[in-house]
Amino acid sequence: MKYLNIFFKKRKKTYLHEVLTYLNIKNKKTYKNVLINNIQNLDQANKNDITFFHSSKYKDLLKVTKSNFIITTSQLSHLLPKLKSKLIVDNVLISVAKITEFFYPNSLNDQFENKYINIDKKNIYKNVKFGSNVVLGENVKIGKNSTVGHNSIIESNVRIGNDCIIGSNVIIKKTLIGNNVSILDGAIIGKKGFGFFPNKNKNIRYPHIGMVVIGNNVEVGCNNTIDRGSLSNTIIGNNSFLDNQVHIAHNVKIGKNCIITGQVGFAGSSTIGNNVMIGGQAGISGHLKIGNNVKVGGGSGVIKNIPDNTKVMGYPAKNIKKFVMENK
Amino acid sequence: MKYLNIFFKKRKKTYLHEVLTYLNIKNKKTYKNVLINNIQNLDQANKNDITFFHSSKYKDLLKVTKSNFIITTSQLSHLLPKLKSKLIVDNVLISVAKITEFFYPNSLNDQFENKYINIDKKNIYKNVKFGSNVVLGENVKIGKNSTVGHNSIIESNVRIGNDCIIGSNVIIKKTLIGNNVSILDGAIIGKKGFGFFPNKNKNIRYPHIGMVVIGNNVEVGCNNTIDRGSLSNTIIGNNSFLDNQVHIAHNVKIGKNCIITGQVGFAGSSTIGNNVMIGGQAGISGHLKIGNNVKVGGGSGVIKNIPDNTKVMGYPAKNIKKFVMENK
Amino acid sequence: MKYLNIFFKKRKKTYLHEVLTYLNIKNKKTYKNVLINNIQNLDQANKNDITFFHSSKYKDLLKVTKSNFIITTSQLSHLLPKLKSKLIVDNVLISVAKITEFFYPNSLNDQFENKYINIDKKNIYKNVKFGSNVVLGENVKIGKNSTVGHNSIIESNVRIGNDCIIGSNVIIKKTLIGNNVSILDGAIIGKKGFGFFPNKNKNIRYPHIGMVVIGNNVEVGCNNTIDRGSLSNTIIGNNSFLDNQVHIAHNVKIGKNCIITGQVGFAGSSTIGNNVMIGGQAGISGHLKIGNNVKVGGGSGVIKNIPDNTKVMGYPAKNIKKFVMENK
Repeated sequence: MKYLNIFFKKRKKTYLHEVLTYLNIKNKKTYKNVLINNIQNLDQANKNDITFFHSSKYKDLLKVTKSNFIITTSQLSHLLPKLKSKLIVDNVLISVAKITEFFYPNSLNDQFENKYINIDKKNIYKNVKFGSNVVLGENVKIGKNSTVGHNSIIESNVRIGNDCIIGSNVIIKKTLIGNNVSILDGAIIGKKGFGFFPNKNKNIRYPHIGMVVIGNNVEVGCNNTIDRGSLSNTIIGNNSFLDNQVHIAHNVKIGKNCIITGQVGFAGSSTIGNNVMIGGQAGISGHLKIGNNVKVGGGSGVIKNIPDNTKVMGYPAKNIKKFVMENK
Repeated sequence: MKYLNIFFKKRKKTYLHEVLTYLNIKNKKTYKNVLINNIQNLDQANKNDITFFHSSKYKDLLKVTKSNFIITTSQLSHLLPKLKSKLIVDNVLISVAKITEFFYPNSLNDQFENKYINIDKKNIYKNVKFGSNVVLGENVKIGKNSTVGHNSIIESNVRIGNDCIIGSNVIIKKTLIGNNVSILDGAIIGKKGFGFFPNKNKNIRYPHIGMVVIGNNVEVGCNNTIDRGSLSNTIIGNNSFLDNQVHIAHNVKIGKNCIITGQVGFAGSSTIGNNVMIGGQAGISGHLKIGNNVKVGGGSGVIKNIPDNTKVMGYPAKNIKKFVMENK
Repeated sequence: MKYLNIFFKKRKKTYLHEVLTYLNIKNKKTYKNVLINNIQNLDQANKNDITFFHSSKYKDLLKVTKSNFIITTSQLSHLLPKLKSKLIVDNVLISVAKITEFFYPNSLNDQFENKYINIDKKNIYKNVKFGSNVVLGENVKIGKNSTVGHNSIIESNVRIGNDCIIGSNVIIKKTLIGNNVSILDGAIIGKKGFGFFPNKNKNIRYPHIGMVVIGNNVEVGCNNTIDRGSLSNTIIGNNSFLDNQVHIAHNVKIGKNCIITGQVGFAGSSTIGNNVMIGGQAGISGHLKIGNNVKVGGGSGVIKNIPDNTKVMGYPAKNIKKFVMENK
């Protein structure tokens, strides 16, 4: 499912040679009249998007990508299909960061949002109940019978459905929220992820232009932190419930009907199936695939993919029967 | 110790046949003139309360309960004493949720509280120092020499003793607080617990009508989350100190003189003795009994009851000597 | 590096005999005209400071301390150099707490700060962008091009450098912040540490007069809690990045270019080297020394010192090769 990104303004009418000039790439004249639409992951890129290939573990995606323009290194370039245009750089991910910023000039600005409206004058919110001292950005949409608690901050263009309960001291930005969702007190949703290029003396920040997409009937607990995606989105599926102090890093996708208990943490880019239950304080490492109907015991540390219908526990997490046997 | 629940208005003059009608139970005519006072756990119910029996592990409590009206399933009903009235349902806990909501019609409303008073006009608080932008509900009582920091929200009927220090950005609801208590910045106390009936597409929320009861000389750290009880209360005993980012789920009872360090988490309904020390990031599973003078090492995962005067460490937590021996 | 403590007012012109009277020490007449400047740790004390010796594990520091006046117990006093004045007490740390409070009379006051200025009237902040409802104490210094988000509270005398991004709902006190620093939403920096003397019925709080010192180019994640030092400072070195929900206890020193991911916790007084990477949910026990270029795997529990250039994982953390081998 694709969501239109309404939070970051994209540069219009961009020529490939402009992008290459920005990256200091030499053979740019060849591409003088080529228009480029966006920068995307291999599997999501269209014909007119630039994409990138930075690790051989993604080589299967090279066969399916629709993009014709692939940023890569000279070491990796032999893996590319012959008909694709190879754009050779020293560091693929730093180049991707630069191109992202080029397409989305405001994407590295992480200051608080300074545009806010006077709620009392906006009678478009007449079916919404607001607490005291709410800060509302421009063009926020909130459905009927929803409530927003005291001191909460909802930045521009956020969408909140019907019958939602937004608590107090909540901060929401770059986020789409379905119907009948509860966001409990102190939750912070949609800030940029913890993604950057480590660099002595001054790390290089990576622009995060993804969103957080929250389905229907979801509950997000107190003091949760849910970071938005970098290029793709962070997603919480329908009817999933998160307890207090849960941390969800960028690009994590959580399925439907999941139950995530207190202080659980997800490192970036993991995908969690449907009907998954995760016990308190468990941690899920990055870039993993957790199947459907999986149960993870409290305190576990999951560092491998988990197939469907499996119960695991331990650190590192293993089949729960094995864990119980070993810890008799 | 029983505390009067001042936060949830109970339905008055309720007949048993009304409750049974609400649950779609057939044999209701038998009980036409029986008045029912409340819904309670087996051990806390009085003669005129309804109670419930949903698991054979509580069968010893059937011998002591004063209640005459016991909700149960047909499978479990043979365990009930002959003289008790058996009220047979398909799912005991869902029926309890419904009855709780029937007795306490506002108990499922978890929106922010919209009634707040103008502190400046309330000279009953003249011995209390308030920060800027404090939101105070109706009928809040705060003792002398107490202070309430900036942006804090204290909902209706909360009781705070003398010489208390309430920090900034704190949220307190459904809570009784003793004297000389510090609630540090960002703590969220008294929201409903993470209790619900998992149900495909739309979980069924459970009304939580318990309180949080905090003794004297307690300290609650920054960004703590302490959920109120479901039917019973969540309790923090006198002189117990909690560090930052601690999470305490519903119905947990912590004794006196306990020391709970940073990022510790308690799943629901565990009981912790007096003089217990718990190291950083340790987790205590639900429905456990931790004895007096117990020491739990940092990072431990406690999944079994721990007897008095024991030191444990590890995941799962075991006797500390065994842990040290195995990890030499 | 020493930083002038601008947050706690020190008592001026203090005679040693006044301090000893306050502690109920008898032989005070000997010191009638001796002026004392401060109370300090053994290694940081100057000639005119009082210091203290409470454990034989610090006996090497007795050889280097410049202080002539050492608080200790009768059991430990034989370890002191002959030329030092021994000030014998029953409990060294409680005496240190009392002396600290004697020198810094306001050091035990942890109420919210009630002095705040009207930002609009302060044109010294004309190069700073403020959100709505910001509370600013007296004499706060904020460098040019910095921003402070909605509802944030910055207490008196805090220093914030140029080009800093302070998020919304942030609380900062007793803290010095360098240039180009991001403090993300909901972070709470500079509250007193979790240090006190356990005492039945009423614990004795310890005055924490240290600061938090944050270098240049640092990022502090959402809902982090960073406690100030007790006598020394809590320090975050240049270009270190902290993810969400990190907890840093008092006196922790983190080096340069460190990467600390989500939900990591540090117990008090540990020292972390430069270029250290710590995975999600890992915990570092108190009073440890973690070397330079160390990598700690996610979920690890570090309970021993770690030498330079080492990778560790597990609970308790061990060499990562050993961990992988044992968990095949």
